[in-house]
Amino acid sequence: MAVYTEIDDDQVTAFVGAYAIGRVLACKGIAEGIENTNYLLTTDRGAYILTLYEKRVTAGDLPFFLSLMEHLAARGVPCPLPVRGRDGETMRWLAERPAAIVSFLEGMWPRKPTPEHCAALGDTLAAMHVAGADFSATRKNDLSVAAWRPLFEASTQAPDGVAPELRDELATELTALAAEWPGDLPVGTIHADLFPDNVFFQGGRLSGVIDFYFACTDFLAYDLAVCLNAWCFEPDLSFNVTKARRMLAAYRERRPVAPAEIEALPVLARGAAMRFLLTRLYDWLHTPRNALVTPKNPAEYLQRLRFHRAVRSAAAYGLE
Amino acid sequence: MAVYTEIDDDQVTAFVGAYAIGRVLACKGIAEGIENTNYLLTTDRGAYILTLYEKRVTAGDLPFFLSLMEHLAARGVPCPLPVRGRDGETMRWLAERPAAIVSFLEGMWPRKPTPEHCAALGDTLAAMHVAGADFSATRKNDLSVAAWRPLFEASTQAPDGVAPELRDELATELTALAAEWPGDLPVGTIHADLFPDNVFFQGGRLSGVIDFYFACTDFLAYDLAVCLNAWCFEPDLSFNVTKARRMLAAYRERRPVAPAEIEALPVLARGAAMRFLLTRLYDWLHTPRNALVTPKNPAEYLQRLRFHRAVRSAAAYGLE
Repeated sequence: MAVYTEIDDDQVTAFVGAYAIGRVLACKGIAEGIENTNYLLTTDRGAYILTLYEKRVTAGDLPFFLSLMEHLAARGVPCPLPVRGRDGETMRWLAERPAAIVSFLEGMWPRKPTPEHCAALGDTLAAMHVAGADFSATRKNDLSVAAWRPLFEASTQAPDGVAPELRDELATELTALAAEWPGDLPVGTIHADLFPDNVFFQGGRLSGVIDFYFACTDFLAYDLAVCLNAWCFEPDLSFNVTKARRMLAAYRERRPVAPAEIEALPVLARGAAMRFLLTRLYDWLHTPRNALVTPKNPAEYLQRLRFHRAVRSAAAYGLE
Repeated sequence: MAVYTEIDDDQVTAFVGAYAIGRVLACKGIAEGIENTNYLLTTDRGAYILTLYEKRVTAGDLPFFLSLMEHLAARGVPCPLPVRGRDGETMRWLAERPAAIVSFLEGMWPRKPTPEHCAALGDTLAAMHVAGADFSATRKNDLSVAAWRPLFEASTQAPDGVAPELRDELATELTALAAEWPGDLPVGTIHADLFPDNVFFQGGRLSGVIDFYFACTDFLAYDLAVCLNAWCFEPDLSFNVTKARRMLAAYRERRPVAPAEIEALPVLARGAAMRFLLTRLYDWLHTPRNALVTPKNPAEYLQRLRFHRAVRSAAAYGLE
């Protein structure tokens, strides 16, 4: 929860003047979002989200993210629609940061996801993958298997360090993942960060998917692996196979999953757990104690990783 | 900037069900406000602010604050209007905290107040004082002169302590303030915390006054003294007499100021500087390093206090 960049009333008015969205009525920093600064902007034409992109999102990548959202929204995926300025551009600069205005999506993210939420998620994830099939731009997944070893090393060298047993366990797992990572699975545009706080529901219906700022071109099944980690563990970190089964079944009704993808799910799920473990570990060790955001504890991803390592086949996820 | 209390979608829906304000479309934590947790609540009938009152606001005081806002809003003061539930109540409980829904006010607070902002502020402050004249409830100002010595002592006993020279300067000033504090000035309902971030403007017009949670019954001129401190110093802490003159002149057009009030302004301004110095000092010394909010630096109030101490009469504020 953070507003990293404060903007003043004059800056907002000048910035919004570049768009045909009416007169500014209010602009309030919102506490959601830990990577970027988000304002809820109200004009006499409606509600919008104004985002200032902080460190982790580079201006060079923004055209990919923004055009992906336009592409998906045009195909009926409930995602934010970037607003084009009078000059036709979706990205411009504000307070020395790249910035964009997107449409406001109704709904709230589910604090306690149910099997029904998981089914709706699987359905929408498949719809996103299908809708993204003719999206021509590509972006490498820079947080996939090749990035993990350097991230791991940056963490083990941090002043507070990592306990020796954990270091050994992760080093062994990284070697195994590099060896077992699939080389040939269906590729497409994936969200890559589809956690419950990025999915809105309203009256039981999935009403929005947000935060496409890790989207990239990678194995479609990797998105499923991320969602298995993000949606199907209980607060006590036990695995809820009913949620996984509902999510995967709904996904498969809209996009057929190849046998090779099913077979690869356990190793992809281990990889996804490793990715979030490592970025959280890195943030945990590199965030100053007085920072605006509390870094998320990486330990829960170690438990998820161990669960997936014990899995013998995708049957453990409720798949035949 | 902080959301101290997270509430989930089910809690929001259940809570809003007690009001006749339509169906919840969205509810987002907002980053403004350092004392309470505020959500921007959108329903199919409009926008509202849902506030959960944290430590500093007690349930016992809330009826005073909420009925004051109702009283002022009914008399045309642009302040939030508490929404009554189907049971007629404005206060209820959410997540074990007292909570209320109030109307959403348009506008943004001025990051760089101008003399025009100060004039509008003076006008609205007088309008609030006039409108509050027939408000019958009272509440003691528990951050006035009697509270300062205990606050000061709690700070000097904190582990990090206060430098000896500063301690001596403040002790001397506290004794002087206790001796010189006026005993007989016009009393009424005051806001007592009217900083720029509590006042919204839209298109140059003052559109809203918020955050009545320090409101109390005290000298009306003390509100002017707070505003002199909050609005009339430049970022380099020089005093801008033009802003003060505009603010006071606009105030006096709507509410005549008695000679005794004018004479008392310098000591009231010293007292107001002391009040914010002491609460900031206390927060500075008692806020854990990893807290969600960065405490505000008390040092700038020491400079304001010294300015007011050097003032010989209210003429220094642009008053004759």
